[in-house]
Amino acid sequence: MSCNHTIHARHHHTGWDRSIAPVLTVRPGETIAVETIDASGGQLDASSGLDDLKALDFGKVNPVTGPIHIEGAEPGDAVAITFKAFHPSGWGWTANIPGFGLLADEFPEAALNIWTYDRALGAPAAFGPGGQVPLKPFVGTIGLAPAEPGLHSVVPPRRVGGNLDVRDNAVGTTLYLPVEVAGGLLSLGDTHAAQGDGEICGTAIESPCEVEIAVDLVKDANFAFPRFETAGPVTRHLDAKGYWVTTGIGTDLMQAARDAVRGTIDRLTAETGLSAVEAYMLSSVCGDLRISEIVDQPNWVVSFYFPKIVLQ
Amino acid sequence: MSCNHTIHARHHHTGWDRSIAPVLTVRPGETIAVETIDASGGQLDASSGLDDLKALDFGKVNPVTGPIHIEGAEPGDAVAITFKAFHPSGWGWTANIPGFGLLADEFPEAALNIWTYDRALGAPAAFGPGGQVPLKPFVGTIGLAPAEPGLHSVVPPRRVGGNLDVRDNAVGTTLYLPVEVAGGLLSLGDTHAAQGDGEICGTAIESPCEVEIAVDLVKDANFAFPRFETAGPVTRHLDAKGYWVTTGIGTDLMQAARDAVRGTIDRLTAETGLSAVEAYMLSSVCGDLRISEIVDQPNWVVSFYFPKIVLQ
Repeated sequence: MSCNHTIHARHHHTGWDRSIAPVLTVRPGETIAVETIDASGGQLDASSGLDDLKALDFGKVNPVTGPIHIEGAEPGDAVAITFKAFHPSGWGWTANIPGFGLLADEFPEAALNIWTYDRALGAPAAFGPGGQVPLKPFVGTIGLAPAEPGLHSVVPPRRVGGNLDVRDNAVGTTLYLPVEVAGGLLSLGDTHAAQGDGEICGTAIESPCEVEIAVDLVKDANFAFPRFETAGPVTRHLDAKGYWVTTGIGTDLMQAARDAVRGTIDRLTAETGLSAVEAYMLSSVCGDLRISEIVDQPNWVVSFYFPKIVLQ
Repeated sequence: MSCNHTIHARHHHTGWDRSIAPVLTVRPGETIAVETIDASGGQLDASSGLDDLKALDFGKVNPVTGPIHIEGAEPGDAVAITFKAFHPSGWGWTANIPGFGLLADEFPEAALNIWTYDRALGAPAAFGPGGQVPLKPFVGTIGLAPAEPGLHSVVPPRRVGGNLDVRDNAVGTTLYLPVEVAGGLLSLGDTHAAQGDGEICGTAIESPCEVEIAVDLVKDANFAFPRFETAGPVTRHLDAKGYWVTTGIGTDLMQAARDAVRGTIDRLTAETGLSAVEAYMLSSVCGDLRISEIVDQPNWVVSFYFPKIVLQ
């Protein structure tokens, strides 16, 4: 595909701020090729080791390329972004970063896995310590500028989007983001080669990509939060062999999610040669957190689905 | 299949209590055909109306058939139940019961939908007000007796199982339940013809079934919570046309789940002829609550996936 516009990765920023000047203005219906750098902001590469991870400057993490001004976008509208193609780089990293992740208290030590994978996505990516992960590249962070002035951290997602880490913002999906400022001011980055629902260890297969998108506008949509529509199934790359599932049950969804994930780590360390932190990182890139029931008062069930194909 | 044993539905109880005498004793490896009655305890049938729903005696709801004593089961073991076959009744009900459900505060009025469906499961079930729901029968409530003496409500699930409402406790799945008392004391009921992850309105397609199971034992499993393994994919009956997804974003998973579901109800009422409570009930039997990310502090993303095939 040939796009109407290209934005190179040097046009990136960290944090959301309506005062950041747009690097490009597009009309609804136009296409844009967007280069991204990885979530470390270029501080890690395919030859990095644990010392590089420990030396990370967090002021540079999660850069996003943009912003893009969409002509005619006004507060109350929604910007519709369709993901047309991904051209992944063939390398990525997954880390346990101390203080970050669903089980941060149980995994205080830094850990890093460097992946190399088939850029054509014809084969799963081999996890060094063991495991084969089917790939599905997507955009982890994509958002518009919030109405509230000032610089807002890029870490949490918001109603205008941002660090959504929705695994299905992949080829064929159309994402709808609520507009809060004129022109919307769209930026994206934090591309991932694969991730499970939850991103439980805090990182995915963090991997720079070139992403091709088409941008459109829904006038007066007045959506409370982001929405999206997928063009087809979302887990068929993972589900052919079924799942191993562990559950957590209790009055608090967060605690139930932690218990569900811990069950899978216990199982993987008991039944494979993986260490606990390896099992945690592998689970983050392929396992899915689902809420099985949220109505049988006072106890809810959260389930963590680990695809068996990864270990076969 | 011919089973080693049969238990008829008259052998049911409500609530869990280690002092309830077993109606059957089996050896590990044996199979059992279990009849169930519906979650209303027989108070609703295919000809019921709203007045019958409003007259429900909650003391009779969610009966389970059993208990079954498994020879050799001791505290610390796990009972493994494999679901071999379902023989559904061809009718079911879905209700909004005041005070019950994820959005109970927004849906104070009772509502009821009676379903009739193909017992051979060759066709989706037609939702009266509009929609075609692919069916996948499963056991909503399956559990063992808790160690703690006394009668425990059948409504909340626990680490010994119970009202798990895990949509994938369906044909081919093996469920592992932690044993707390000698013999385990297994009971099951609350069979559903279909349900999405979350069971958001509080009910599924509540439908009596005969269920064939095989029972086995894992000695000294010492599982903290129930686990299960599926034989294959879990959503292919729903996913062929993709999903419409709405999200909720914030610091509380419960609130995010509520916001995600409300987004889908808003969309369905805006784009179809369904009323809000109809959209809520239809979403409960086919839509899935997923945790998209649980690590981008302080905001989490919960997504509600509504399968497009239901409206086509």
